[in-house]
Amino acid sequence: MTGVAKQPEPTAEIEFWFEFGSNYSYLSVMRIEQEARRHGVRIAWKPFLLGPIFRALGMENSPFVLQKEKGVYVQQDMARLCRKYGLAPWVKPSVFPRLGVLPLRIALLGVDQPWIGAFCRKVMELNFARDQDINQPEQMAPIVAELGLSALGLIERAQSEPVKTRLRDQTEQARAKGIFGAPTFFVGTEMFWGNDRLDDALLFAAERKV
Amino acid sequence: MTGVAKQPEPTAEIEFWFEFGSNYSYLSVMRIEQEARRHGVRIAWKPFLLGPIFRALGMENSPFVLQKEKGVYVQQDMARLCRKYGLAPWVKPSVFPRLGVLPLRIALLGVDQPWIGAFCRKVMELNFARDQDINQPEQMAPIVAELGLSALGLIERAQSEPVKTRLRDQTEQARAKGIFGAPTFFVGTEMFWGNDRLDDALLFAAERKV
Repeated sequence: MTGVAKQPEPTAEIEFWFEFGSNYSYLSVMRIEQEARRHGVRIAWKPFLLGPIFRALGMENSPFVLQKEKGVYVQQDMARLCRKYGLAPWVKPSVFPRLGVLPLRIALLGVDQPWIGAFCRKVMELNFARDQDINQPEQMAPIVAELGLSALGLIERAQSEPVKTRLRDQTEQARAKGIFGAPTFFVGTEMFWGNDRLDDALLFAAERKV
Repeated sequence: MTGVAKQPEPTAEIEFWFEFGSNYSYLSVMRIEQEARRHGVRIAWKPFLLGPIFRALGMENSPFVLQKEKGVYVQQDMARLCRKYGLAPWVKPSVFPRLGVLPLRIALLGVDQPWIGAFCRKVMELNFARDQDINQPEQMAPIVAELGLSALGLIERAQSEPVKTRLRDQTEQARAKGIFGAPTFFVGTEMFWGNDRLDDALLFAAERKV
Protein backbone atom coordinates (compact mmCIF):
# COMPACT_ATOMS: atom_id res chain seq x y z
CA MET A 1 0.00 0.00 0.00
CA THR A 2 2.83 2.38 -0.75
CA GLY A 3 1.82 5.75 -2.07
CA VAL A 4 -1.19 6.01 0.24
CA ALA A 5 -0.59 8.86 2.67
CA LYS A 6 -1.26 7.89 6.25
CA GLN A 7 -4.13 9.88 7.71
CA PRO A 8 -3.02 11.83 10.76
CA GLU A 9 -4.81 11.00 13.99
CA PRO A 10 -7.72 13.40 14.54
CA THR A 11 -6.85 15.93 17.19
CA ALA A 12 -9.30 17.24 19.76
CA GLU A 13 -10.06 20.88 18.99
CA ILE A 14 -12.21 23.61 20.43
CA GLU A 15 -13.23 26.75 18.56
CA PHE A 16 -13.08 29.74 20.89
CA TRP A 17 -15.18 32.68 19.68
CA PHE A 18 -14.45 35.74 21.79
CA GLU A 19 -14.61 39.54 21.92
CA PHE A 20 -12.32 41.86 23.87
CA GLY A 21 -15.27 44.00 24.99
CA SER A 22 -17.05 41.05 26.58
CA ASN A 23 -16.53 40.51 30.31
CA TYR A 24 -17.38 36.81 30.21
CA SER A 25 -14.92 36.42 27.32
CA TYR A 26 -12.37 37.93 29.72
CA LEU A 27 -12.87 35.03 32.13
CA SER A 28 -12.43 32.44 29.39
CA VAL A 29 -9.41 34.16 27.82
CA MET A 30 -7.67 34.06 31.19
CA ARG A 31 -8.42 30.35 31.69
CA ILE A 32 -8.54 28.63 28.34
CA GLU A 33 -4.89 27.91 27.54
CA GLN A 34 -4.23 26.24 30.86
CA GLU A 35 -7.49 24.28 30.82
CA ALA A 36 -7.13 23.21 27.19
CA ARG A 37 -3.59 21.97 27.85
CA ARG A 38 -4.85 19.95 30.79
CA HIS A 39 -7.46 18.29 28.53
CA GLY A 40 -5.09 17.84 25.59
CA VAL A 41 -7.28 20.01 23.36
CA ARG A 42 -6.08 22.40 20.65
CA ILE A 43 -7.60 25.89 20.61
CA ALA A 44 -8.78 27.47 17.36
CA TRP A 45 -8.87 31.17 18.30
CA LYS A 46 -11.80 32.99 16.68
CA PRO A 47 -11.84 36.72 17.46
CA PHE A 48 -15.03 38.40 16.20
CA LEU A 49 -17.08 41.56 16.66
CA LEU A 50 -20.05 41.21 18.98
CA GLY A 51 -21.64 44.55 18.07
CA PRO A 52 -22.86 43.53 14.59
CA ILE A 53 -24.19 40.25 16.06
CA PHE A 54 -26.22 42.12 18.67
CA ARG A 55 -27.49 44.56 16.04
CA ALA A 56 -28.54 41.68 13.77
CA LEU A 57 -30.57 40.39 16.74
CA GLY A 58 -32.24 43.78 17.16
CA MET A 59 -30.16 44.99 20.12
CA GLU A 60 -28.38 48.31 19.94
CA ASN A 61 -26.04 47.51 22.82
CA SER A 62 -24.95 44.78 25.22
CA PRO A 63 -27.86 43.16 27.09
CA PHE A 64 -25.96 44.11 30.26
CA VAL A 65 -26.51 47.75 29.30
CA LEU A 66 -30.01 47.40 27.84
CA GLN A 67 -31.35 45.39 30.81
CA LYS A 68 -30.55 47.33 33.94
CA GLU A 69 -31.37 44.44 36.29
CA LYS A 70 -29.06 42.09 34.43
CA GLY A 71 -26.34 44.73 34.37
CA VAL A 72 -26.52 45.11 38.16
CA TYR A 73 -26.39 41.35 38.62
CA VAL A 74 -23.40 40.93 36.33
CA GLN A 75 -21.30 43.07 38.68
CA GLN A 76 -22.02 40.71 41.62
CA ASP A 77 -21.42 37.70 39.43
CA MET A 78 -18.12 38.97 38.03
CA ALA A 79 -16.83 39.86 41.50
CA ARG A 80 -17.48 36.31 42.68
CA LEU A 81 -16.08 34.67 39.53
CA CYS A 82 -12.88 36.74 39.60
CA ARG A 83 -12.35 35.57 43.19
CA LYS A 84 -13.13 31.98 42.20
CA TYR A 85 -10.61 32.00 39.33
CA GLY A 86 -7.95 33.93 41.24
CA LEU A 87 -8.07 36.96 38.93
CA ALA A 88 -7.61 40.60 39.90
CA PRO A 89 -10.43 41.89 42.13
CA TRP A 90 -13.34 42.91 39.89
CA VAL A 91 -13.94 46.61 39.45
CA LYS A 92 -16.84 47.75 37.30
CA PRO A 93 -15.25 49.12 34.10
CA SER A 94 -15.74 52.87 33.70
CA VAL A 95 -16.56 52.23 30.01
CA PHE A 96 -18.64 49.24 28.97
CA PRO A 97 -18.58 47.67 26.52
CA ARG A 98 -15.21 48.91 25.29
CA LEU A 99 -14.47 48.91 21.58
CA GLY A 100 -11.78 46.38 20.76
CA VAL A 101 -11.59 46.43 16.98
CA LEU A 102 -7.84 47.02 16.83
CA PRO A 103 -6.86 44.22 19.23
CA LEU A 104 -9.30 41.87 17.49
CA ARG A 105 -7.53 42.60 14.19
CA ILE A 106 -4.14 42.01 15.82
CA ALA A 107 -5.46 38.76 17.30
CA LEU A 108 -6.52 37.67 13.82
CA LEU A 109 -2.87 37.93 12.77
CA GLY A 110 -1.88 35.78 15.74
CA VAL A 111 -4.37 32.92 15.70
CA ASP A 112 -1.66 30.44 14.65
CA GLN A 113 1.17 32.12 16.53
CA PRO A 114 2.56 31.09 19.92
CA TRP A 115 1.89 34.57 21.31
CA ILE A 116 -1.89 34.55 20.78
CA GLY A 117 -2.84 33.50 24.32
CA ALA A 118 -0.50 35.91 26.08
CA PHE A 119 -1.58 38.75 23.80
CA CYS A 120 -5.27 38.16 24.47
CA ARG A 121 -4.72 37.98 28.22
CA LYS A 122 -2.82 41.28 28.22
CA VAL A 123 -5.58 43.03 26.28
CA MET A 124 -8.23 41.64 28.59
CA GLU A 125 -6.30 42.71 31.68
CA LEU A 126 -5.94 46.20 30.26
CA ASN A 127 -9.72 46.43 29.81
CA PHE A 128 -11.02 44.57 32.85
CA ALA A 129 -8.27 44.63 35.48
CA ARG A 130 -6.74 48.05 34.72
CA ASP A 131 -9.89 49.73 33.40
CA GLN A 132 -8.21 51.24 30.34
CA ASP A 133 -9.17 51.64 26.71
CA ILE A 134 -7.85 49.07 24.27
CA ASN A 135 -8.67 50.38 20.82
CA GLN A 136 -5.73 52.72 20.05
CA PRO A 137 -2.27 51.90 18.63
CA GLU A 138 -0.58 53.60 21.62
CA GLN A 139 -2.42 51.21 23.97
CA MET A 140 -1.49 48.15 21.91
CA ALA A 141 2.15 49.06 21.22
CA PRO A 142 3.55 48.27 24.71
CA ILE A 143 1.65 44.98 24.83
CA VAL A 144 2.90 43.89 21.44
CA ALA A 145 6.45 44.99 22.29
CA GLU A 146 6.36 43.08 25.59
CA LEU A 147 5.71 39.94 23.57
CA GLY A 148 8.90 40.60 21.63
CA LEU A 149 7.07 41.48 18.43
CA SER A 150 7.64 44.45 16.17
CA ALA A 151 4.85 46.74 17.35
CA LEU A 152 5.03 49.06 14.40
CA GLY A 153 4.88 46.37 11.76
CA LEU A 154 2.18 44.31 13.44
CA ILE A 155 -0.14 47.20 14.25
CA GLU A 156 0.24 48.55 10.72
CA ARG A 157 -0.61 45.17 9.20
CA ALA A 158 -3.57 44.83 11.54
CA GLN A 159 -5.02 48.01 10.08
CA SER A 160 -4.62 46.95 6.47
CA GLU A 161 -7.68 46.36 4.30
CA PRO A 162 -7.28 42.58 4.00
CA VAL A 163 -7.26 42.21 7.80
CA LYS A 164 -10.25 44.53 8.19
CA THR A 165 -12.09 42.37 5.68
CA ARG A 166 -11.09 39.18 7.49
CA LEU A 167 -12.57 40.46 10.75
CA ARG A 168 -15.82 41.39 9.01
CA ASP A 169 -15.90 37.96 7.34
CA GLN A 170 -15.24 36.15 10.59
CA THR A 171 -18.03 38.12 12.27
CA GLU A 172 -20.40 37.17 9.46
CA GLN A 173 -19.32 33.56 9.91
CA ALA A 174 -20.17 33.83 13.63
CA ARG A 175 -23.63 35.09 12.75
CA ALA A 176 -24.11 32.31 10.19
CA LYS A 177 -23.18 29.72 12.84
CA GLY A 178 -25.96 31.01 15.11
CA ILE A 179 -23.67 32.71 17.61
CA PHE A 180 -25.60 35.21 19.74
CA GLY A 181 -23.12 36.06 22.50
CA ALA A 182 -19.55 35.65 23.69
CA PRO A 183 -17.69 33.64 24.56
CA THR A 184 -19.02 30.78 22.46
CA PHE A 185 -17.28 27.48 21.95
CA PHE A 186 -17.78 24.94 19.19
CA VAL A 187 -16.71 21.33 19.22
CA GLY A 188 -17.71 20.09 15.80
CA THR A 189 -21.34 21.18 15.44
CA GLU A 190 -21.97 21.35 19.20
CA MET A 191 -22.27 24.91 20.44
CA PHE A 192 -21.45 25.84 24.03
CA TRP A 193 -22.37 29.36 25.12
CA GLY A 194 -20.67 31.24 27.90
CA ASN A 195 -17.66 30.94 30.15
CA ASP A 196 -19.81 28.61 32.28
CA ARG A 197 -19.59 26.01 29.51
CA LEU A 198 -15.83 26.10 28.92
CA ASP A 199 -15.16 23.05 31.06
CA ASP A 200 -18.00 21.01 29.55
CA ALA A 201 -16.87 21.98 26.06
CA LEU A 202 -13.27 20.93 26.72
CA LEU A 203 -14.39 17.65 28.21
CA PHE A 204 -16.64 17.07 25.21
CA ALA A 205 -13.75 17.83 22.85
CA ALA A 206 -11.33 15.59 24.73
CA GLU A 207 -13.74 12.66 24.78
CA ARG A 208 -14.95 12.99 21.22
CA LYS A 209 -11.56 13.95 19.79
CA VAL A 210 -13.37 15.99 17.15
CA MET B 1 -28.12 35.76 82.88
CA THR B 2 -31.37 33.88 83.37
CA GLY B 3 -34.29 35.16 81.39
CA VAL B 4 -32.18 35.93 78.33
CA ALA B 5 -33.35 33.69 75.54
CA LYS B 6 -30.50 31.91 73.83
CA GLN B 7 -30.23 32.97 70.20
CA PRO B 8 -30.55 29.98 67.90
CA GLU B 9 -27.52 29.31 65.73
CA PRO B 10 -28.01 30.91 62.32
CA THR B 11 -28.81 28.28 59.75
CA ALA B 12 -27.49 28.33 56.21
CA GLU B 13 -30.35 29.06 53.83
CA ILE B 14 -30.82 29.48 50.12
CA GLU B 15 -33.82 31.17 48.52
CA PHE B 16 -34.86 29.26 45.42
CA TRP B 17 -36.95 31.34 43.00
CA PHE B 18 -38.38 29.12 40.28
CA GLU B 19 -41.10 28.78 37.65
CA PHE B 20 -42.66 25.58 36.34
CA GLY B 21 -42.56 26.87 32.77
CA SER B 22 -38.80 27.46 32.86
CA ASN B 23 -36.57 24.68 31.52
CA TYR B 24 -33.52 25.74 33.51
CA SER B 25 -35.70 25.81 36.65
CA TYR B 26 -36.49 22.18 35.77
CA LEU B 27 -32.82 21.26 36.11
CA SER B 28 -32.53 22.97 39.49
CA VAL B 29 -35.78 21.56 40.84
CA MET B 30 -34.53 18.06 40.05
CA ARG B 31 -31.19 18.64 41.79
CA ILE B 32 -31.67 21.09 44.62
CA GLU B 33 -32.91 18.93 47.50
CA GLN B 34 -30.09 16.42 47.17
CA GLU B 35 -27.44 19.09 46.70
CA ALA B 36 -28.72 21.29 49.53
CA ARG B 37 -28.75 18.33 51.90
CA ARG B 38 -25.16 17.56 50.98
CA HIS B 39 -24.17 21.15 51.86
CA GLY B 40 -26.33 21.32 55.01
CA VAL B 41 -28.36 24.20 53.58
CA ARG B 42 -32.08 24.85 54.11
CA ILE B 43 -34.15 25.67 51.03
CA ALA B 44 -36.65 28.54 51.08
CA TRP B 45 -38.90 27.63 48.13
CA LYS B 46 -40.05 30.70 46.23
CA PRO B 47 -42.44 29.90 43.38
CA PHE B 48 -43.19 32.94 41.21
CA LEU B 49 -44.56 33.90 37.81
CA LEU B 50 -41.93 34.64 35.19
CA GLY B 51 -44.35 36.12 32.63
CA PRO B 52 -45.01 39.41 34.48
CA ILE B 53 -41.25 39.76 35.12
CA PHE B 54 -40.48 39.41 31.42
CA ARG B 55 -43.27 41.84 30.54
CA ALA B 56 -41.94 44.40 33.07
CA LEU B 57 -38.59 44.12 31.22
CA GLY B 58 -40.30 44.77 27.90
CA MET B 59 -40.39 41.16 26.66
CA GLU B 60 -43.66 39.61 25.55
CA ASN B 61 -42.35 36.05 25.81
CA SER B 62 -39.40 33.94 26.90
CA PRO B 63 -36.09 35.07 25.39
CA PHE B 64 -35.79 31.49 24.10
CA VAL B 65 -38.84 32.18 21.93
CA LEU B 66 -38.06 35.80 21.06
CA GLN B 67 -34.44 35.07 20.07
CA LYS B 68 -34.52 32.26 17.56
CA GLU B 69 -30.76 31.61 17.75
CA LYS B 70 -30.86 31.31 21.52
CA GLY B 71 -33.88 29.03 21.30
CA VAL B 72 -32.06 26.67 18.95
CA TYR B 73 -29.02 26.64 21.22
CA VAL B 74 -31.06 25.90 24.32
CA GLN B 75 -32.19 22.58 22.83
CA GLN B 76 -28.55 21.46 22.42
CA ASP B 77 -27.68 22.73 25.85
CA MET B 78 -30.63 21.02 27.58
CA ALA B 79 -29.90 17.71 25.84
CA ARG B 80 -26.34 17.77 27.17
CA LEU B 81 -27.33 18.91 30.66
CA CYS B 82 -30.05 16.27 31.02
CA ARG B 83 -27.41 13.64 30.17
CA LYS B 84 -24.96 15.21 32.60
CA TYR B 85 -27.48 15.18 35.47
CA GLY B 86 -28.88 11.75 34.63
CA LEU B 87 -32.36 13.05 33.83
CA ALA B 88 -34.76 11.72 31.21
CA PRO B 89 -33.48 12.28 27.65
CA TRP B 90 -34.38 15.81 26.59
CA VAL B 91 -37.18 16.21 24.09
CA LYS B 92 -38.12 19.69 22.93
CA PRO B 93 -41.48 20.43 24.59
CA SER B 94 -44.34 20.71 22.10
CA VAL B 95 -45.56 23.79 24.03
CA PHE B 96 -43.08 26.32 25.42
CA PRO B 97 -43.25 28.02 27.78
CA ARG B 98 -46.11 26.16 29.44
CA LEU B 99 -48.40 28.02 31.82
CA GLY B 100 -47.94 26.76 35.36
CA VAL B 101 -50.10 29.08 37.45
CA LEU B 102 -52.03 26.30 39.18
CA PRO B 103 -48.98 24.26 40.24
CA LEU B 104 -47.25 27.46 41.37
CA ARG B 105 -50.24 28.19 43.61
CA ILE B 106 -50.17 24.64 44.96
CA ALA B 107 -46.44 24.99 45.58
CA LEU B 108 -47.12 28.15 47.58
CA LEU B 109 -49.24 26.05 49.93
CA GLY B 110 -46.39 23.59 50.30
CA VAL B 111 -43.33 25.78 50.83
CA ASP B 112 -43.03 24.64 54.46
CA GLN B 113 -44.31 21.13 53.90
CA PRO B 114 -42.23 17.98 53.52
CA TRP B 115 -43.84 17.24 50.15
CA ILE B 116 -42.71 20.43 48.40
CA GLY B 117 -39.62 18.94 46.71
CA ALA B 118 -41.37 15.81 45.47
CA PHE B 119 -44.34 17.84 44.24
CA CYS B 120 -42.17 20.23 42.27
CA ARG B 121 -40.19 17.40 40.69
CA LYS B 122 -43.39 15.65 39.57
CA VAL B 123 -44.75 18.83 37.97
CA MET B 124 -41.45 19.45 36.20
CA GLU B 125 -41.30 15.88 34.91
CA LEU B 126 -44.85 16.19 33.59
CA ASN B 127 -43.83 19.30 31.64
CA PHE B 128 -40.30 18.49 30.52
CA ALA B 129 -39.95 14.71 30.57
CA ARG B 130 -43.52 13.72 29.59
CA ASP B 131 -44.33 16.79 27.47
CA GLN B 132 -47.74 17.37 29.02
CA ASP B 133 -49.66 20.41 30.18
CA ILE B 134 -49.55 21.26 33.86
CA ASN B 135 -52.09 24.00 34.40
CA GLN B 136 -55.36 22.06 34.88
CA PRO B 137 -56.81 20.46 38.03
CA GLU B 138 -57.09 17.09 36.26
CA GLN B 139 -53.34 17.17 35.57
CA MET B 140 -52.49 18.09 39.15
CA ALA B 141 -54.91 15.73 40.91
CA PRO B 142 -52.94 12.48 40.33
CA ILE B 143 -49.68 14.15 41.37
CA VAL B 144 -51.17 15.51 44.56
CA ALA B 145 -52.87 12.19 45.32
CA GLU B 146 -49.60 10.29 44.76
CA LEU B 147 -48.09 12.38 47.53
CA GLY B 148 -50.82 11.19 49.85
CA LEU B 149 -52.54 14.56 49.99
CA SER B 150 -56.21 15.33 49.57
CA ALA B 151 -56.27 16.41 45.95
CA LEU B 152 -59.69 17.98 46.10
CA GLY B 153 -59.01 20.08 49.20
CA LEU B 154 -55.56 21.21 48.16
CA ILE B 155 -56.43 22.16 44.59
CA GLU B 156 -59.50 24.03 45.79
CA ARG B 157 -57.47 25.98 48.35
CA ALA B 158 -54.84 26.72 45.71
CA GLN B 159 -57.49 28.46 43.62
CA SER B 160 -58.79 30.63 46.46
CA GLU B 161 -58.40 34.40 46.35
CA PRO B 162 -55.83 34.65 49.17
CA VAL B 163 -53.52 32.20 47.41
CA LYS B 164 -53.93 33.97 44.07
CA THR B 165 -52.99 37.20 45.83
CA ARG B 166 -49.97 35.57 47.47
CA LEU B 167 -48.62 34.44 44.10
CA ARG B 168 -49.06 37.92 42.68
CA ASP B 169 -47.34 39.41 45.73
CA GLN B 170 -44.46 36.97 45.54
CA THR B 171 -44.01 37.79 41.86
CA GLU B 172 -43.93 41.50 42.69
CA GLN B 173 -41.35 40.74 45.39
CA ALA B 174 -39.24 38.94 42.77
CA ARG B 175 -39.37 41.98 40.55
CA ALA B 176 -38.47 44.28 43.45
CA LYS B 177 -35.45 42.10 44.24
CA GLY B 178 -34.14 42.60 40.70
CA ILE B 179 -34.92 39.08 39.49
CA PHE B 180 -34.93 38.92 35.69
CA GLY B 181 -34.99 35.18 35.02
CA ALA B 182 -35.37 31.74 36.57
CA PRO B 183 -34.08 29.97 38.42
CA THR B 184 -32.58 32.61 40.67
CA PHE B 185 -30.99 31.94 44.05
CA PHE B 186 -30.41 34.35 46.89
CA VAL B 187 -28.07 33.88 49.81
CA GLY B 188 -28.62 36.99 51.89
CA THR B 189 -28.29 39.84 49.42
CA GLU B 190 -26.14 37.86 46.97
CA MET B 191 -28.04 36.94 43.83
CA PHE B 192 -27.10 33.90 41.75
CA TRP B 193 -28.81 33.53 38.38
CA GLY B 194 -29.36 30.27 36.60
CA ASN B 195 -29.02 26.56 37.22
CA ASP B 196 -25.32 27.02 36.44
CA ARG B 197 -24.95 28.91 39.73
CA LEU B 198 -26.74 26.45 42.03
CA ASP B 199 -23.52 24.85 43.24
CA ASP B 200 -21.74 28.16 43.82
CA ALA B 201 -24.79 29.49 45.67
CA LEU B 202 -24.98 26.45 47.95
CA LEU B 203 -21.28 26.65 48.68
CA PHE B 204 -21.65 30.34 49.45
CA ALA B 205 -24.58 29.62 51.77
CA ALA B 206 -22.77 26.80 53.53
CA GLU B 207 -19.65 28.87 54.12
CA ARG B 208 -21.38 32.06 55.13
CA LYS B 209 -24.13 30.35 57.12
CA VAL B 210 -26.42 33.25 56.20
